[in-house]
Amino acid sequence: MGKLGVAVIGLNGAVATTAAAGIAAIRAGSNDLAGLPLADRQGTGLHDYRDIEFAGWDLNGRSMAEAAQAHEVVPAATLSAVREELAGIRPWPAIGSTDFCANIDGDNKMNGGCGHRAAVQQIKDDLDRLRETRGVDDLVVINLASTERLPNANGLLERLDAFEEGLDANAPEISPAMLYAYAAIDHRVPYANFTPSVAADAKALVEFAEKRGVPIAGKDGKTGQTMMKTVIAPALRDRALHVDGWFSTNILGNSDGLALDDPKSLASKVNTKKRVLDQILGYPVEDHIVMIHYYRPRGDAKEAWDNIDVSGFLGQKMQIKVNFLCQDSILAAPLVIEIARVLDLAAKRGDGGVQEQMSLFFKLPQTRGGRQPEHEFSCQVRMLDAWLEQGTPN
Amino acid sequence: MGKLGVAVIGLNGAVATTAAAGIAAIRAGSNDLAGLPLADRQGTGLHDYRDIEFAGWDLNGRSMAEAAQAHEVVPAATLSAVREELAGIRPWPAIGSTDFCANIDGDNKMNGGCGHRAAVQQIKDDLDRLRETRGVDDLVVINLASTERLPNANGLLERLDAFEEGLDANAPEISPAMLYAYAAIDHRVPYANFTPSVAADAKALVEFAEKRGVPIAGKDGKTGQTMMKTVIAPALRDRALHVDGWFSTNILGNSDGLALDDPKSLASKVNTKKRVLDQILGYPVEDHIVMIHYYRPRGDAKEAWDNIDVSGFLGQKMQIKVNFLCQDSILAAPLVIEIARVLDLAAKRGDGGVQEQMSLFFKLPQTRGGRQPEHEFSCQVRMLDAWLEQGTPN
Amino acid sequence: MGKLGVAVIGLNGAVATTAAAGIAAIRAGSNDLAGLPLADRQGTGLHDYRDIEFAGWDLNGRSMAEAAQAHEVVPAATLSAVREELAGIRPWPAIGSTDFCANIDGDNKMNGGCGHRAAVQQIKDDLDRLRETRGVDDLVVINLASTERLPNANGLLERLDAFEEGLDANAPEISPAMLYAYAAIDHRVPYANFTPSVAADAKALVEFAEKRGVPIAGKDGKTGQTMMKTVIAPALRDRALHVDGWFSTNILGNSDGLALDDPKSLASKVNTKKRVLDQILGYPVEDHIVMIHYYRPRGDAKEAWDNIDVSGFLGQKMQIKVNFLCQDSILAAPLVIEIARVLDLAAKRGDGGVQEQMSLFFKLPQTRGGRQPEHEFSCQVRMLDAWLEQGTPN
Amino acid sequence: MGKLGVAVIGLNGAVATTAAAGIAAIRAGSNDLAGLPLADRQGTGLHDYRDIEFAGWDLNGRSMAEAAQAHEVVPAATLSAVREELAGIRPWPAIGSTDFCANIDGDNKMNGGCGHRAAVQQIKDDLDRLRETRGVDDLVVINLASTERLPNANGLLERLDAFEEGLDANAPEISPAMLYAYAAIDHRVPYANFTPSVAADAKALVEFAEKRGVPIAGKDGKTGQTMMKTVIAPALRDRALHVDGWFSTNILGNSDGLALDDPKSLASKVNTKKRVLDQILGYPVEDHIVMIHYYRPRGDAKEAWDNIDVSGFLGQKMQIKVNFLCQDSILAAPLVIEIARVLDLAAKRGDGGVQEQMSLFFKLPQTRGGRQPEHEFSCQVRMLDAWLEQGTPN
Repeated sequence: MGKLGVAVIGLNGAVATTAAAGIAAIRAGSNDLAGLPLADRQGTGLHDYRDIEFAGWDLNGRSMAEAAQAHEVVPAATLSAVREELAGIRPWPAIGSTDFCANIDGDNKMNGGCGHRAAVQQIKDDLDRLRETRGVDDLVVINLASTERLPNANGLLERLDAFEEGLDANAPEISPAMLYAYAAIDHRVPYANFTPSVAADAKALVEFAEKRGVPIAGKDGKTGQTMMKTVIAPALRDRALHVDGWFSTNILGNSDGLALDDPKSLASKVNTKKRVLDQILGYPVEDHIVMIHYYRPRGDAKEAWDNIDVSGFLGQKMQIKVNFLCQDSILAAPLVIEIARVLDLAAKRGDGGVQEQMSLFFKLPQTRGGRQPEHEFSCQVRMLDAWLEQGTPN
Repeated sequence: MGKLGVAVIGLNGAVATTAAAGIAAIRAGSNDLAGLPLADRQGTGLHDYRDIEFAGWDLNGRSMAEAAQAHEVVPAATLSAVREELAGIRPWPAIGSTDFCANIDGDNKMNGGCGHRAAVQQIKDDLDRLRETRGVDDLVVINLASTERLPNANGLLERLDAFEEGLDANAPEISPAMLYAYAAIDHRVPYANFTPSVAADAKALVEFAEKRGVPIAGKDGKTGQTMMKTVIAPALRDRALHVDGWFSTNILGNSDGLALDDPKSLASKVNTKKRVLDQILGYPVEDHIVMIHYYRPRGDAKEAWDNIDVSGFLGQKMQIKVNFLCQDSILAAPLVIEIARVLDLAAKRGDGGVQEQMSLFFKLPQTRGGRQPEHEFSCQVRMLDAWLEQGTPN
Repeated sequence: MGKLGVAVIGLNGAVATTAAAGIAAIRAGSNDLAGLPLADRQGTGLHDYRDIEFAGWDLNGRSMAEAAQAHEVVPAATLSAVREELAGIRPWPAIGSTDFCANIDGDNKMNGGCGHRAAVQQIKDDLDRLRETRGVDDLVVINLASTERLPNANGLLERLDAFEEGLDANAPEISPAMLYAYAAIDHRVPYANFTPSVAADAKALVEFAEKRGVPIAGKDGKTGQTMMKTVIAPALRDRALHVDGWFSTNILGNSDGLALDDPKSLASKVNTKKRVLDQILGYPVEDHIVMIHYYRPRGDAKEAWDNIDVSGFLGQKMQIKVNFLCQDSILAAPLVIEIARVLDLAAKRGDGGVQEQMSLFFKLPQTRGGRQPEHEFSCQVRMLDAWLEQGTPN
Repeated sequence: MGKLGVAVIGLNGAVATTAAAGIAAIRAGSNDLAGLPLADRQGTGLHDYRDIEFAGWDLNGRSMAEAAQAHEVVPAATLSAVREELAGIRPWPAIGSTDFCANIDGDNKMNGGCGHRAAVQQIKDDLDRLRETRGVDDLVVINLASTERLPNANGLLERLDAFEEGLDANAPEISPAMLYAYAAIDHRVPYANFTPSVAADAKALVEFAEKRGVPIAGKDGKTGQTMMKTVIAPALRDRALHVDGWFSTNILGNSDGLALDDPKSLASKVNTKKRVLDQILGYPVEDHIVMIHYYRPRGDAKEAWDNIDVSGFLGQKMQIKVNFLCQDSILAAPLVIEIARVLDLAAKRGDGGVQEQMSLFFKLPQTRGGRQPEHEFSCQVRMLDAWLEQGTPN
């Protein structure tokens, strides 16, 4: 089937370096496929893991090997086995904006001063160069960059023509995440947003993706706490246990945590984390609190503590406490890999626009035609299964 | 539709008294239906909650009002509102056996010395009397008695004819739970087993239920920890997180806990709690430990602590800890009520034998034709939904 | 020994009503002294619990019986036994200030418009009236009001003469808590501050208390999470386990929680909660996070979750998680009672000024002569023991 | 001061290899003294850490480097730095007994068949050889072997003369742990017991140690859960919070856990863990449950979960849950090192018999003259401090 190039925004982050190390390890012969949900889907038209090539943009210009070393997520033995491959990959200069992401900056910036249209052209040139220099046949773009603040509400994001006028005028409402999404769609490269930032989910860009017939999906990868929420809440509903309150707190010490230490970025994140409950339960949970704290002793080892207060028969109160000691990037990396494979398959099948069957990967799934998103985990699993089955040769 | 009589083995236990208090409260006008999973199923042919009448057997002969008071589960205000109704219900003498349940005994025993056949006849007479004296139209029997030890393996439980010979011979392998089940089936009264004891799931009695066309279901009510297990495990499987170990411990201080303080009864219980994981995950979990401790400070407020060790991408280890501070009887009582309603509906529909669609109520669902039980919670929910839909008028 | 009158600022709060109900229950014959740390101190000159009389100020003017009923802290049986006594106590009008405490207001306000000096006079008149009408011999004032925001830094709080000029000028920097403290000291009534608000710990008022020879103590009652912190941290130090981080979060739904939902009041509170660690450990803990969330499902049942990250031998990381499901007012009320008894004993002994031996009751103990406070719980226990022994007749 | 030789029973276990690796790392220049409680005690006469030499017995004959590698406790970088030193140390043949420790066996056994007296002589010869071949001036013996079952009650352990007759007669009541203890005392080498096995705490051997003037201390190292218990329980007592129940469970997967998977060894262990509470609180805790489970996914990373049920003011119930994710050997190893240093100092000071000031290191401290042991952690700390001060030059 040829090679699948995955161009990542935020290539030197913990998630992308972990994903790239894992793929390199499989290519080097490892058959440990733990954490990869679609590992047993043979004959569905998905690219083999060994065919995946990582590239992309980052404000930090060191090699992926150096970045992986610094994140301390990839086990030493694995890193040592794949170091050479990762040492050969350096990120392309990225678009930086401390306006949209206050705590994150770096030196490896695109030549500024030329404005939005120049940035879009640069992104497309980067993608072309990837195709040529690394023998890549298929291509997807995935956003793994730090969370941006919410954009100022603006008609400009509502319609494609307004958005394109904004591009011409270098409108400050257009964020880096939107420029990457626009460029990918414009270049007919499938695009997924693993972050809470507003990007291809802006109405203008959904319109663009449909027009161009480019598959898009998002947003905000569903890894630890929210995944558990969408697993447990349906059961509470099905047992008629009323959720009086749900208190969720998180501590993590990686650069994702640092980005979220900016209240504006945090607002984007919490926003996508809070919506899931009410839709699943069918009523508003009045005391639903979600907190994220930057706490350095943990590094990438994110810990979530959830306290669920429920009322049952005769109004009696009960509590469920869930304490998830997870590895943020270890949970996220294999999802990114699967997203790339499914997105590419959608392109091959000629499915353009929003890929709703990919809901199980996201905290806030994009949907078609204004439909309410499906948040219930077991329903999402069945939705993707059914979609994959369609293409399975009998 | 007339009245539905629910004859309970273990009528004065915390679960039955809670269920009866709840039904009495609804009959008295309460519209709090929290905890009742089928409360919104109108027009399916299920009995209205207000039509349910409780009666049954117990080794303890006090009134249900006194028993409810002693268990301290029903809130004071509710109990006060329904005390008169419960004060009027006294359990019939029960079959006691400290051989099968070492820690539980009482004075309200059936006139002993007459053997198995006499006990069976007494049970049938009790059911007839219930029908006559309380104007009950439909009838079900539900086992809520303390957990019995596992019976000695014996061909006698394998075939109906051998079992009936055992009845004649007063075989010591036949436990009280089996006598109640036999009598119910013989009397064409639907029967459910909410305990881990061996009863209508003995092959001989399954054969009997099929022959007689009597609906049966079981076994061991799925309330707290195991319910959560069947909710969480499928998601771990679907995210390809490998379960290296699952450590479950429970502390509770009610009479259920006291019964389980006998190692033989405990063995029955743990047995039904342990099977669910491997079936859901598709591989054996080598370190799956389930403990139950009798710990008096808790009374009926059972607490479960689960520690799940998983491996994800690149073999990295993570932990999920679930701490469920539940009220054992508050979770169980509404399930008992729904079991009674569904079982009766099955009888009305003419469905005899094992009611597999009731799997979501049980830790170890009985199945037909040797099928593996379905343990996954969301699948069980859909299974019952589909069955209920069948009978819904269009 | 006569009666000890306890005049409480915040008389209708959960803590004061619980304390008053407990004392009334003991007077009515209960001999359950659980939670009262000095219950076994006979012959030390402390007032008998049965001699204590509660009175005080509150913005809410209902009777203590109604208030206790609303807080749902005192068990129904106890409340019923003491209702008559509590029904007879109504709070005096209090000084309100939504400037200093944004989320708390009420109708039972002192006749405003007359300024600081009038308020002070009113407080003194109230105390005189208590002495006369209820036959009280000894008197103490205790602040249990909602947490005020930190005052604006101002020289006015540094020296008594400046403070008194501020009183004359109705300076807005002077908060209600300071007015009560000033009035008590001026009237030679011992004063304790169970809240984090700045009151008798302002330098000007310490100077005043020393000058007048009036015992004062504070501040911020040490009940749940911080108490545990001062118990556990010394052991970590003594085992040479280095604290890399300590994450503390709290959820509570009583009016204390509502007051703290105002960020300015929260700042006062967190401030007193954070200081203890560094002093005990002897080095600054870089990642010490303390959060308090208003979460209504809990009411008065405060829950604290602490996560302690430590490094041990060979730099290896370990975690201690402490989850305290406490009843805020149940922990606080008996401390308030003991504070009143000890403060009165200090007055009888002629000890004026800061009562450092009372450190074990407070999160931020006031000290004499600029000494660092002792936070270690076991040392605090020994300090009070030694002080009590002094007065014990041989 | 010369070298201090530490002869360990169980040299190739996780604790001893960790301790030896840590000492080697300090000798090699590391100045990370985390976890070593007496690291800041200069001028007290304690040996410098760099002077310590490890040797000893083990049923497993591989080198300490291989053993350390297998335990996966020492971090890879540290192990690599000290591998050469550890590779040079191989344990002497040990006394094995599957009667006393069912789950633990190995090939590196003392030449059997010769009986108790021969074993004692072999141990003394081993100690002499250590002195000669490694230039060791001072010597201590520390028992770190797997937990033995409780010995059968027997007068033989009550008096020295009876014990010595038992030695002559190869009495089966005498366990390996007792033989090592006897040999050490007989050879005038200080002895400490870090395990729950009965050894120098048998009355006969206490008598022997006093007669010979040899310092002994024990027993059962106080590391994680029990340490926390002796820290928290005094505070509950001092706040008058009544302990209704304390449920403690442990999961661990190292060979200590495997040894405890034998019910007889477990009984020894639980026995020493349960006594501490009642002495500290001053009343018997009726529901005090202590469980230890062998759970392989954890390896050496022991996890303790404690649930404490307390009653406070007005009889209200509260819960404290403590979850300690510790590294068993990381907590134990530095204590072993400090025990060796203190024991040697006692010998130098001429203190023979039971070293009560070492109570803070043990779950069940040995005392002199039948005194009740002091379990309260802060009191134990002060006791050792005072003893160390005695010898400090002014």
